[in-house]
Amino acid sequence: MTARDEAVGAVEIGLDDLRRLGRSAYEKAGLSSGDAETVVEVQLAADLRGVDTHGFQRLPWYVGHLLAGRNNPSPQWRVVRESPVSVLLDADNALGQLACVRLAELTIAKATGSGLALGASRNSNDWGCGAYYPLMAAEAGFVAFATTTSVPTLAPFGGRTRMLGNNPMVFAVPRRSGPPLVLDMALTPVALGKVMRAQAEHQPIPEEWGFRDDQGRPTTDPAAALAGIIPAIGAYKGTGLSLMMNVLAGILPGGRHSSEVGVGHRGQLMLAVSPDLFGERDRFLGQVESMAAGVKGAEPLPGAVVSLPGEPESLRADQARERGSIRYPPSVVAELASMAASLGIPGPDRV
Amino acid sequence: MTARDEAVGAVEIGLDDLRRLGRSAYEKAGLSSGDAETVVEVQLAADLRGVDTHGFQRLPWYVGHLLAGRNNPSPQWRVVRESPVSVLLDADNALGQLACVRLAELTIAKATGSGLALGASRNSNDWGCGAYYPLMAAEAGFVAFATTTSVPTLAPFGGRTRMLGNNPMVFAVPRRSGPPLVLDMALTPVALGKVMRAQAEHQPIPEEWGFRDDQGRPTTDPAAALAGIIPAIGAYKGTGLSLMMNVLAGILPGGRHSSEVGVGHRGQLMLAVSPDLFGERDRFLGQVESMAAGVKGAEPLPGAVVSLPGEPESLRADQARERGSIRYPPSVVAELASMAASLGIPGPDRV
Repeated sequence: MTARDEAVGAVEIGLDDLRRLGRSAYEKAGLSSGDAETVVEVQLAADLRGVDTHGFQRLPWYVGHLLAGRNNPSPQWRVVRESPVSVLLDADNALGQLACVRLAELTIAKATGSGLALGASRNSNDWGCGAYYPLMAAEAGFVAFATTTSVPTLAPFGGRTRMLGNNPMVFAVPRRSGPPLVLDMALTPVALGKVMRAQAEHQPIPEEWGFRDDQGRPTTDPAAALAGIIPAIGAYKGTGLSLMMNVLAGILPGGRHSSEVGVGHRGQLMLAVSPDLFGERDRFLGQVESMAAGVKGAEPLPGAVVSLPGEPESLRADQARERGSIRYPPSVVAELASMAASLGIPGPDRV
Repeated sequence: MTARDEAVGAVEIGLDDLRRLGRSAYEKAGLSSGDAETVVEVQLAADLRGVDTHGFQRLPWYVGHLLAGRNNPSPQWRVVRESPVSVLLDADNALGQLACVRLAELTIAKATGSGLALGASRNSNDWGCGAYYPLMAAEAGFVAFATTTSVPTLAPFGGRTRMLGNNPMVFAVPRRSGPPLVLDMALTPVALGKVMRAQAEHQPIPEEWGFRDDQGRPTTDPAAALAGIIPAIGAYKGTGLSLMMNVLAGILPGGRHSSEVGVGHRGQLMLAVSPDLFGERDRFLGQVESMAAGVKGAEPLPGAVVSLPGEPESLRADQARERGSIRYPPSVVAELASMAASLGIPGPDRV
């Protein structure tokens, strides 16, 4: 639990109850029970890992999209094109979680044959917690990379016209035992979900987050920040990465790209590489352990802890699983309760 | 010419004279005439593109390494392992430029067959201007990515022990006509070469570059900055990328990694993807043009120019080629002259 959760009086909900609530809601919204289970597990994984801007907080939003007909609850999956090392999936406006689990399965299957595979999707949606899919590949023994297009929030460097997504990049690396290394990062210094939450809670944002209003002036007002110039990491480097991810996940799969990315028209790209391509797997895993030991043995700066990529999230998930519950801000619980009421299903139970 | 070049009295050297000087120097250092020509073209491309920290400024340093026996002037190239979609090159301590041109050629050849290929090298060296190699692939029609290990200058996030390289990432995208898009970026907000040049010229560095001394205090002293905590873009994001690039270019090829990266023991990784894997090439190229037109049509911030990745470098190269010469700071020319004198070859001629 973060200091912030304490401050606003976090509410604890049991994992089983979350599963029950999530599956019922998605089934009410038209998903098959298998698909409902898949989406709920991906969203629960986000909350377990503490990536709470991408978990159940978004559930009412997804359910609303399905009910409004903006997403397709019963997509016709179609492999548009394939080769021994590649696969292109048309997701038929499915939820992004379903599209990306399927994309990961297809890519892993191809890579299992050839040691290397590139999968892509189009006509997909928001993938939620991006770490999930490369983690699937890493748990199957592959080094993996994935990226996605997203709605245009960034301007090209030097410009003010928003036309590029804050497109996340995810890398995952298998380990001999224990959870894979995983780096899941968007291209802004701070997740936009945090700015949105500050806005919902009427809190200012720190000036050092680097947001500017639409006149280019530094701002701590979340609304002005979201409507202004959103900073990218490393200035032209971050905006350059967003353009390159736009090519990889938007243009390469033949989907929409740049300012035309929107509901039903996101794309994803996923690469899986077997360490066997370049040598003995055992040597590879041994070197990964040696690197991990080096990092964990680094001298920390005063007051800091040195972590491996994905380690804090993995520890948080272990703790939440042991506790059997997840803590949410009251605003999230209220929205889940309101959604449940409108669907005619039991709402979340506090632990 | 930058304002800075003007200030220090830049010296102009003709392209033909640079080629003559470079080739003679490398041949004196033991390279075959073909290899000498290759290295010179890669280094000249860096200077033409204005990436002048990676061009002829480093030539005396490379020649010194060869003469001192730290690099191998006549490497025995060996393909250690290959598959229809992958190739692993042992570079036998060759200059990194030679290793990476060869790696690019091998990777492009594999990708020409299968549409997708991953090449890796080990026992290689500093690749100089990294844009060169993915540009080779993009000019052959492939979307390309490359990365390399480099000497440990970064600490893992929260730590002070240097064990990760400022490992560059390069993406290149082919266009219908004209130069490919290329993003060539290291993981610090500012190239370390710029800090080294400031040190050589006894100039302070701007505080906003974000360097800290070894006590974690902000500093403008280049020496203290180079000896201190070097910032990465996006904090844990940049250090996380450096760790992931360390896996891709160090561990995956079975070379040295992390703090053990050094002369003769760098590695590189290169991915080439044919747009044909996912659809018609013409559709891909058309979408790239539509994205490029969108970026160039973006409304600029006051006083700014909106460029495509690689566009300023490409324009600079066109201008320098037209002029037939490159401008260098006097310190670089003095070092080239001193090297030439010690090799017994004619020094650089001012235009």
